[in-house]
Amino acid sequence: MPLKRKIINDPVFGFITIPNDFVYDIIQHPFLQRLSRIRQLGLTSFVYPGAQHTRFHHSLGAMFLMGEALKTLKEKGHEISEEEKNGALAAILMHDIGHGPFSHVLEHTLVTHVQHETLSLLLMKQMNAELNGALQTAIDIFTDKYPKRFLHQLVSGQLDMDRLDYLRRDSFFTGVSEGNIGSARIIKMLDVKDDQLVVESKGIYSIENFLMSRRLMFWQVYLHKTAVAAEKMMINTLKRAKELSMNGERLFASPALSYFLKKETTLADFENHGEALQHFALLDDNDLWSALKVWASHGDTVLRVLSEGMINRKLFKIEITEDEVEPERVKQQLEYYTRKFNVSEHEAGYFLASDCMATDMYNKEDDSIGILYKDGTVKDISKASDMLNIELLSKRVEKHYFAYLRV
Amino acid sequence: MPLKRKIINDPVFGFITIPNDFVYDIIQHPFLQRLSRIRQLGLTSFVYPGAQHTRFHHSLGAMFLMGEALKTLKEKGHEISEEEKNGALAAILMHDIGHGPFSHVLEHTLVTHVQHETLSLLLMKQMNAELNGALQTAIDIFTDKYPKRFLHQLVSGQLDMDRLDYLRRDSFFTGVSEGNIGSARIIKMLDVKDDQLVVESKGIYSIENFLMSRRLMFWQVYLHKTAVAAEKMMINTLKRAKELSMNGERLFASPALSYFLKKETTLADFENHGEALQHFALLDDNDLWSALKVWASHGDTVLRVLSEGMINRKLFKIEITEDEVEPERVKQQLEYYTRKFNVSEHEAGYFLASDCMATDMYNKEDDSIGILYKDGTVKDISKASDMLNIELLSKRVEKHYFAYLRV
Amino acid sequence: MPLKRKIINDPVFGFITIPNDFVYDIIQHPFLQRLSRIRQLGLTSFVYPGAQHTRFHHSLGAMFLMGEALKTLKEKGHEISEEEKNGALAAILMHDIGHGPFSHVLEHTLVTHVQHETLSLLLMKQMNAELNGALQTAIDIFTDKYPKRFLHQLVSGQLDMDRLDYLRRDSFFTGVSEGNIGSARIIKMLDVKDDQLVVESKGIYSIENFLMSRRLMFWQVYLHKTAVAAEKMMINTLKRAKELSMNGERLFASPALSYFLKKETTLADFENHGEALQHFALLDDNDLWSALKVWASHGDTVLRVLSEGMINRKLFKIEITEDEVEPERVKQQLEYYTRKFNVSEHEAGYFLASDCMATDMYNKEDDSIGILYKDGTVKDISKASDMLNIELLSKRVEKHYFAYLRV
Amino acid sequence: MPLKRKIINDPVFGFITIPNDFVYDIIQHPFLQRLSRIRQLGLTSFVYPGAQHTRFHHSLGAMFLMGEALKTLKEKGHEISEEEKNGALAAILMHDIGHGPFSHVLEHTLVTHVQHETLSLLLMKQMNAELNGALQTAIDIFTDKYPKRFLHQLVSGQLDMDRLDYLRRDSFFTGVSEGNIGSARIIKMLDVKDDQLVVESKGIYSIENFLMSRRLMFWQVYLHKTAVAAEKMMINTLKRAKELSMNGERLFASPALSYFLKKETTLADFENHGEALQHFALLDDNDLWSALKVWASHGDTVLRVLSEGMINRKLFKIEITEDEVEPERVKQQLEYYTRKFNVSEHEAGYFLASDCMATDMYNKEDDSIGILYKDGTVKDISKASDMLNIELLSKRVEKHYFAYLRV
Repeated sequence: MPLKRKIINDPVFGFITIPNDFVYDIIQHPFLQRLSRIRQLGLTSFVYPGAQHTRFHHSLGAMFLMGEALKTLKEKGHEISEEEKNGALAAILMHDIGHGPFSHVLEHTLVTHVQHETLSLLLMKQMNAELNGALQTAIDIFTDKYPKRFLHQLVSGQLDMDRLDYLRRDSFFTGVSEGNIGSARIIKMLDVKDDQLVVESKGIYSIENFLMSRRLMFWQVYLHKTAVAAEKMMINTLKRAKELSMNGERLFASPALSYFLKKETTLADFENHGEALQHFALLDDNDLWSALKVWASHGDTVLRVLSEGMINRKLFKIEITEDEVEPERVKQQLEYYTRKFNVSEHEAGYFLASDCMATDMYNKEDDSIGILYKDGTVKDISKASDMLNIELLSKRVEKHYFAYLRV
Repeated sequence: MPLKRKIINDPVFGFITIPNDFVYDIIQHPFLQRLSRIRQLGLTSFVYPGAQHTRFHHSLGAMFLMGEALKTLKEKGHEISEEEKNGALAAILMHDIGHGPFSHVLEHTLVTHVQHETLSLLLMKQMNAELNGALQTAIDIFTDKYPKRFLHQLVSGQLDMDRLDYLRRDSFFTGVSEGNIGSARIIKMLDVKDDQLVVESKGIYSIENFLMSRRLMFWQVYLHKTAVAAEKMMINTLKRAKELSMNGERLFASPALSYFLKKETTLADFENHGEALQHFALLDDNDLWSALKVWASHGDTVLRVLSEGMINRKLFKIEITEDEVEPERVKQQLEYYTRKFNVSEHEAGYFLASDCMATDMYNKEDDSIGILYKDGTVKDISKASDMLNIELLSKRVEKHYFAYLRV
Repeated sequence: MPLKRKIINDPVFGFITIPNDFVYDIIQHPFLQRLSRIRQLGLTSFVYPGAQHTRFHHSLGAMFLMGEALKTLKEKGHEISEEEKNGALAAILMHDIGHGPFSHVLEHTLVTHVQHETLSLLLMKQMNAELNGALQTAIDIFTDKYPKRFLHQLVSGQLDMDRLDYLRRDSFFTGVSEGNIGSARIIKMLDVKDDQLVVESKGIYSIENFLMSRRLMFWQVYLHKTAVAAEKMMINTLKRAKELSMNGERLFASPALSYFLKKETTLADFENHGEALQHFALLDDNDLWSALKVWASHGDTVLRVLSEGMINRKLFKIEITEDEVEPERVKQQLEYYTRKFNVSEHEAGYFLASDCMATDMYNKEDDSIGILYKDGTVKDISKASDMLNIELLSKRVEKHYFAYLRV
Repeated sequence: MPLKRKIINDPVFGFITIPNDFVYDIIQHPFLQRLSRIRQLGLTSFVYPGAQHTRFHHSLGAMFLMGEALKTLKEKGHEISEEEKNGALAAILMHDIGHGPFSHVLEHTLVTHVQHETLSLLLMKQMNAELNGALQTAIDIFTDKYPKRFLHQLVSGQLDMDRLDYLRRDSFFTGVSEGNIGSARIIKMLDVKDDQLVVESKGIYSIENFLMSRRLMFWQVYLHKTAVAAEKMMINTLKRAKELSMNGERLFASPALSYFLKKETTLADFENHGEALQHFALLDDNDLWSALKVWASHGDTVLRVLSEGMINRKLFKIEITEDEVEPERVKQQLEYYTRKFNVSEHEAGYFLASDCMATDMYNKEDDSIGILYKDGTVKDISKASDMLNIELLSKRVEKHYFAYLRV
């Protein structure tokens, strides 16, 4: 129906066309609309003020790229039915619906026992029930149960549309322009061989560049030390809020946030359209910021100091080092806080965080990028590249950090 | 102190350097940080999903342009002291601190008796007190009491850094790339003559283009019918919430929002660092979205339907017309809603809105853009342009709209 | 045949796909390849060093936009056969093949009696003969003899793909980014009504912006005074070279250039694949620059001074004024040159130029832009726009210039 | 003097300001102006039609970056006098003046015994004589005789302004946007330690990205197989033209080109403002294209076929392989051409080319990129990077090609 045809202006890709009503209705669903209230990069905007783009916007972009990829594959002679196309578009649109606000933060605090992929699937199933099964193909593709497995790889794999969009989009909105991965060129090089997504051999330099840009984005953006500091502070803030709540303290919070502050949930709470899932589906960035502002004048010293720091950008100071922080240093810092704030050592512990952060960007066992040669043979990029040392690229890089309240 | 020197990545201008500690400390002030939780374009992201940029980011951009403009003017021989430079940078940084979330919405609902410029000034004065008078020059420039009046014009005038930044930035983040105003070229053409900001005559085409791009942005973005529909719906939602609150109904809301829901404030409440000002300084987008989500399951039909519409993008349908809507049509629509929702006619009134929206972009009496010729004479752009009909451009364009709930 | 399928990297539009062999073969034809040696903006690169893009590149871009426009129109239900599509693509690809190097310069000097549109048609006919009539539809569209007249309007009209590409492309390569016309948005708004190309009413602001950007590009780029000065100097140089040649002087020149220096050609010389046409088809920017460098050490003072000025960027000084230059001033300047260079007054005349330059960008009689309303009515933009004063826009703007050798 | 102050529009960097008359006069010198007639990427525009940018434009861009780099270093406390600043700006402006048209082609054909760096120096010395020694500091910096050696490294080294500009600019004009190297970020990270240009440790990811983008640009652009094919064809064309000329055949050519076709020059011919240098200073792209067009109808089969191929884009077919082409295959191909064109085997040899092309992008002995840590230590990037395998990056990559006429 023409009424629902829409063209969306996207500063990254120009115009994104919503191809049909089926897709339109998914986009309009509350679970998708909720993503428009969750920022893709969470607290990274403390470092990159332009990084305010939402998971909703990212999902639209990934859908656009999926459309481009499917068009390319069809032009190269691979059969993709209308049903499959819609399934792939729906799958990529919905792939992130299980994300909560500040995703990693939540997984360490309020929703500790269930991963976002699991939540995505639970929410998809609920949508599928509402839509009388219309999403079954999408769910099969998402869960890799669909026979044409390359469709799943377009949704989730080393070169999926998720990554191609978020790297491009995060590069655009942060202004880290050298993170540009050349998504259009990569998509034009995609092909399918033996039901595996592969890249034509002349695209090898684009793939090398993609892997390196991704690495740049990891260290320059995703693991930027100020963003990590903010995340650790947020985690400690929520942990304290939860501790207080579990102990019966009343904290200002929306009903959805309140639910997760007061209860240690398990998978069972989410399953079968459970209460936890319904609350989760209402949770977004706003609940947390709203609460933090109120908590910033709470009676509990720890909660107040941390919340006020989050609100007014007085973030943890952070040091990144090769080695773990000396226990002695942690001890001294704790003592300092106990005196300074007149709190217990347990409470003082909320004012610091130390651990290691790691990145292994290319996992050569699990996924791999196949390079297709003109003679029909396929080599893994780690073999095909005459330069990239995939051994190194797949090496787990670990760095230690020590983050602590500035006073 | 080098510790506080910062370079900020901006996708619009590349890199923005914070020039000194004085400026750094303003940026770090809670009143400025609050702007990082208020979107520049409010509900426009319903139409342009990329338009998530904040007033904080805009303020940084305007500061950057101010630095560029001052550099240009100094190179052209105009004396600008370090004190004046800092004053101008501070003034433009703070020019928006009086904005609330969804600025126009609030002015029609929760903060009806005080304009944002007044609030900006009140907040500046409070900051000035905290900073022992260091902001006096900035405030004098902002209020046009500083002797060099061109500094005020850089902050507020037809060609101020506010406009140059927001048009450029809004164009960038919406993806309406043809709204690009060429800010760099305009700034290079700026000069001062008889203490008035003027533009070199060879910049006349850039000014014409600026005026037309601005017009494009007005109709394509700022007055986009879907954005207007969302705004009207938000206004009615908040009006209903306030009505209920004033009548003693308890609604979920943060303390700051609650304050304005329950009380009809006047200027007096804000003055002298009053309670209203302190609550206002804690209000941002999050309070409203957070509340709307809870209200979407409230017992009051009107509040519930409107809130749920806002959250799930079931916005008012809107018609833009030359003429006012027929009273008969409004009446029929009201009757329909009273029956449909079993509400009173007064309550049904919340489900629609009609009025006229107007734009007079160029007010040739109040402000004007002087064009400086090589012989030293200055002509107003309305005389200087051989093409632009400023009579027309300054004509108030009015359009009527009729917005109503889709059911 | 897949062998000839090609994707071309375009910094303006991303990737341009050559859709089929028919189109590929046109692009590979020597007449098209020649355009890769003719710069779109001629001498404008003296002002904008990035403006080196060729007419070949522009033709590819216009073809890309034609493909986009046809796709849009088909999606809106207008029937366009494969034959018609290929015809339109071929027509826009070939629309500029009649351009010589420094087009306006040549029309005032070496090819004075035949317009470039005529030459384009003659060359198309020769190509058509070579290709056994395969270009007949394209030629019919180009000459407006094809029944579906909107196809011609896409090639040549107020909103043709030629303009949409060159304004966008010239804006891009000059770096005059505010000249960006939003070609993608305009194309999405195109429709056909009663066999006329029209624009949907919601695209009216884009059209206003397009007209104003075009105006900006005219004065900021196409009629930039330094570019005009260079053009006048080039014209005088070639006129002198031709005068000398006609008088039997031997000048270094390629055979093609030599032909036009020695002979006053008429249409008859070009027709029927005549000698003039064959020489013309070999003429490009290189012939002229190559000759100018040699002429810069020629014995004739006038030719030497002018050529050396062109090569080493010692261009005419130019003054743009409302009124014509005073005859007395011209006289004095001539006298100065006769003494300075010891030349006759006739010869001194080559060291200056004065005339008026005009622009009437919107000719409301000949072409017009129809705006299509939802009720099916069409209004001309001059009526539809509530702001643009088309009377003014279509007013011929005239400026006088006086250009003369700096010594 | 304000008269000579100029702002140049650059689509890559926005605006480039010419800082003073000294720099302005260098830019206006015929040796610099000549670079505006030499394309930066030579024949690469056969593949990337946007790649028409000139060495002149590149030189302006490199000068802009030099200004930015010097500003950064001064802000970090390094003393750089006005004299040194001007010297560095002049040195980078002039660094390419020794390039001829299609630089690599010429070095294999017409100017075989003198490298472009040598020619640059000879031309600089001539300019210096004309300017009464004003360029001495620039020349000292260029030749690495100036005491502050980091100034030389900014002109010529692993991270010089030459590379930073050309990679950025070539990426921009080809449309290979993922080759973007983030020049602004790298420049902000530059520092000097013990008179060596170094990069702050937090810039390490930018450097890794720079090295990889450079690699991408090498294979995707500089060594693109079609560009290599064009280059080989051009080399063979010029070799044949020279062979014929040396044998007394008269070929159409400008005097400058004619000089090099007829004479095997040595360094002695260029030195002391010699005849060869004067001719060289007049040679540019136009001479070659102009001649090729005439040669395309020359009586000599080899010259005619090759020239016509160059003009009409009927380029050599090229195969890139791991191993050398089989001698037998070359032999068969030669026999085919001798029969086909009725030429000798020696002549048939012009219709093909085979060799290896190599790239060793990072030479860890000669240059290196020092990474400066906060404790003041400096490590080479090959040690500092936890990922990049510089052993691999500095490994010479060789590929074989076999290029031959398509008939």
